[in-house]
Amino acid sequence: METQELLGFMGGLITTGGFVPQVWRLFKLKSAVEISLFFTVFFVIGISFWLVYGIVAGLPSVILWNSITLILGMSMLYAKVKYGGPIHDK
Amino acid sequence: METQELLGFMGGLITTGGFVPQVWRLFKLKSAVEISLFFTVFFVIGISFWLVYGIVAGLPSVILWNSITLILGMSMLYAKVKYGGPIHDK
Repeated sequence: METQELLGFMGGLITTGGFVPQVWRLFKLKSAVEISLFFTVFFVIGISFWLVYGIVAGLPSVILWNSITLILGMSMLYAKVKYGGPIHDK
Repeated sequence: METQELLGFMGGLITTGGFVPQVWRLFKLKSAVEISLFFTVFFVIGISFWLVYGIVAGLPSVILWNSITLILGMSMLYAKVKYGGPIHDK
């Protein structure tokens, strides 16, 4: 694997991997008051743009990891809506 | 600006932008118990890899936004250490 793709693969693996314990934690604590609703919404939208960017640019690491991160991002958004406390509390 | 770079620019702007209210919220609430320590540590490491990936691959959007996200990631890590509750509580 080329250095460039290895760096992207590692970056994606570690960053995306880090979201798993974060999502797990929200569902374990059944609490997401500290999580910003703006963050979760922007994150899902932003990651979608990165995914299309990866497809257009033909970058395997960007495609792979942003697909998985998108799912984790949507789980965080779900946790925020379900456990985030009063909805006006952004 | 090429479509590819525009997508990357938008992806970075929205994703990174979303972190600002998240970091702000942790410092406002002075609480980061829901934030996973694994997430913040992995995030900082992972984003560093993405930054080097962007430099090696010569991708302006990846370089720009991962530099800013790295700073925001380190602020989240600081907030977790400062307000995250008992350190063993990952």
